[in-house]
Amino acid sequence: MLRHKLLIVVGMVIGSVMTAAWLAQPQAVAGEPPKNPQPQATKDITLDQAYAVSKAAFDKAHEIDTKMDIAIVDAGGNLKSFARMDGAWIGSIDIAIKKAKTARFFDMPTGEIGKLSQPGGPLYNIEHSNNGLITFPGGIPLKSSDGTVIGAIGVSGSTVENDHTVAQAGADAIGSK
Amino acid sequence: MLRHKLLIVVGMVIGSVMTAAWLAQPQAVAGEPPKNPQPQATKDITLDQAYAVSKAAFDKAHEIDTKMDIAIVDAGGNLKSFARMDGAWIGSIDIAIKKAKTARFFDMPTGEIGKLSQPGGPLYNIEHSNNGLITFPGGIPLKSSDGTVIGAIGVSGSTVENDHTVAQAGADAIGSK
Amino acid sequence: MLRHKLLIVVGMVIGSVMTAAWLAQPQAVAGEPPKNPQPQATKDITLDQAYAVSKAAFDKAHEIDTKMDIAIVDAGGNLKSFARMDGAWIGSIDIAIKKAKTARFFDMPTGEIGKLSQPGGPLYNIEHSNNGLITFPGGIPLKSSDGTVIGAIGVSGSTVENDHTVAQAGADAIGSK
Amino acid sequence: MLRHKLLIVVGMVIGSVMTAAWLAQPQAVAGEPPKNPQPQATKDITLDQAYAVSKAAFDKAHEIDTKMDIAIVDAGGNLKSFARMDGAWIGSIDIAIKKAKTARFFDMPTGEIGKLSQPGGPLYNIEHSNNGLITFPGGIPLKSSDGTVIGAIGVSGSTVENDHTVAQAGADAIGSK
Repeated sequence: MLRHKLLIVVGMVIGSVMTAAWLAQPQAVAGEPPKNPQPQATKDITLDQAYAVSKAAFDKAHEIDTKMDIAIVDAGGNLKSFARMDGAWIGSIDIAIKKAKTARFFDMPTGEIGKLSQPGGPLYNIEHSNNGLITFPGGIPLKSSDGTVIGAIGVSGSTVENDHTVAQAGADAIGSK
Repeated sequence: MLRHKLLIVVGMVIGSVMTAAWLAQPQAVAGEPPKNPQPQATKDITLDQAYAVSKAAFDKAHEIDTKMDIAIVDAGGNLKSFARMDGAWIGSIDIAIKKAKTARFFDMPTGEIGKLSQPGGPLYNIEHSNNGLITFPGGIPLKSSDGTVIGAIGVSGSTVENDHTVAQAGADAIGSK
Repeated sequence: MLRHKLLIVVGMVIGSVMTAAWLAQPQAVAGEPPKNPQPQATKDITLDQAYAVSKAAFDKAHEIDTKMDIAIVDAGGNLKSFARMDGAWIGSIDIAIKKAKTARFFDMPTGEIGKLSQPGGPLYNIEHSNNGLITFPGGIPLKSSDGTVIGAIGVSGSTVENDHTVAQAGADAIGSK
Repeated sequence: MLRHKLLIVVGMVIGSVMTAAWLAQPQAVAGEPPKNPQPQATKDITLDQAYAVSKAAFDKAHEIDTKMDIAIVDAGGNLKSFARMDGAWIGSIDIAIKKAKTARFFDMPTGEIGKLSQPGGPLYNIEHSNNGLITFPGGIPLKSSDGTVIGAIGVSGSTVENDHTVAQAGADAIGSK
């Protein structure tokens, strides 16, 4: 009987600690929580912008005589638009999309990640995350004029230098630098 | 009754053609092969066509006041183009693409497959194949003027009736009937 | 030689048609494109809001004596926060996350989708899309005071009625109706 | 003081049961099995502990001015809690979770595994297992005061040095060394 009572006491202690922890928890992370927390204002790419980016990228692809797959994702990393030129590689569909996602996932050009993911580098084999990343050049974040990342472009179909050149032409179309 | 008889006749024709094809095939494998086998001539959608289909579909989407995700695949079932209207469902990205693939995988409107994949139906749970099919309306094969299937369109973002209406408007743009 | 010239002419015609199509393309979708397309202003959930939602949900879970897994996703459908109560089902980790994603993917409570995805229903087997949806109750979109969807909550661990009740308590905490 | 003594007694009982279980286990495989085999006593992280770990990690993240994704898994390697700071990388959701799982899967800091998985190393490409491991720093096992691994923390969102520092601050909060 004593043991049963002890268990009940232990349970009461756990219960009160949990209650205290729950009550304390929002404060624990961010200080005294606001009474009525508000969403953060942000920005997202429009389809008009996606087409402006794509058009600039395709113009560059034509100019340097390449056949490209071009993908645009939004601020949430979700596909916004895609187009594959006639004769461009089928295998580049997934790579273009993954490059765009990778660039948005980490808000940097894919090639920058690739420099860090080499053997011996600090992010070796990061490509195994997120259902597969592509970390060679061709993906670039898209930014609004105030610097907010509103999406990303991913280009695949030629050398990584050409892929990057075409992606940069697209990104420049909406003022991303 | 006449229609039933016609269906039976169609079935008989299909059956005899298939039988002939099967009988002819072993020679190719085990008999004397032709001296200089030639590839089959075929047709595939161009990016220009994909945009023509997309434009007609988007025009219809605007006309009936819906927000759609629209995907086009080529004759190989591989993504050719995609666009998501501002405010259209994120979850429809994958569904639009899967509808287009499903329509090309079996060369019929997705809704026709859905009739056959119900519990007790002959294709029950076919959706488990091919990394996931979508078998409700909104996917339609795209055909050249001679009837060759050159790709498919998949539309998602509203009711299945609206999705199908928009997909049909797209398919009609290049003469598919 | 004549044939070569003809091919060149054909190439010129194709080239000019493609150029015209590219130039026309942005207009084709959305009318005359703005010179300098701007991103859309939008809103996203904050971690403070996610905790406010979670706390209200956990309070309800305690009140009705259930053990729950509770997931919150942001406006892009990406995981914002998650917590699993001691003794809650391990199998509900994935279900809670998928419910939250499903609710944001289609901006409606998961149970509403489930009504449409039954055998014979218009969205039969939609669950095969998006790497797996969960379409029974327990997922609810989270909205800002102006109705913008800023994320979603997914709850799993008890009956679907209890899951929904707990999710609703969470959603109510930031004024979603 | 009485409570401390009680806890010590409880610990002694658990310790002797565990010892007996270990001694009894080999017979089960190769000799006469015990009449009434008993489960092994073990320990698992609580949600209260997960929050204590998270709070310490978030405090450190704020202190060094970083934006982090922080995941905690339990003794079974299953997600216990997760939170992503406003503005932290979307791509770090999966990496934080995978770091926590990897640390628990092998009961060592992720960076230690990474040293062994380089080209030419004994665990080359171990990242392909378990649906994707992350083997650079930022994942650390969580231990109870007696050394039992009760879970793990995974942190992602900055340099691997910062990720590790924040993870260590979290692990230290419950006495793991």
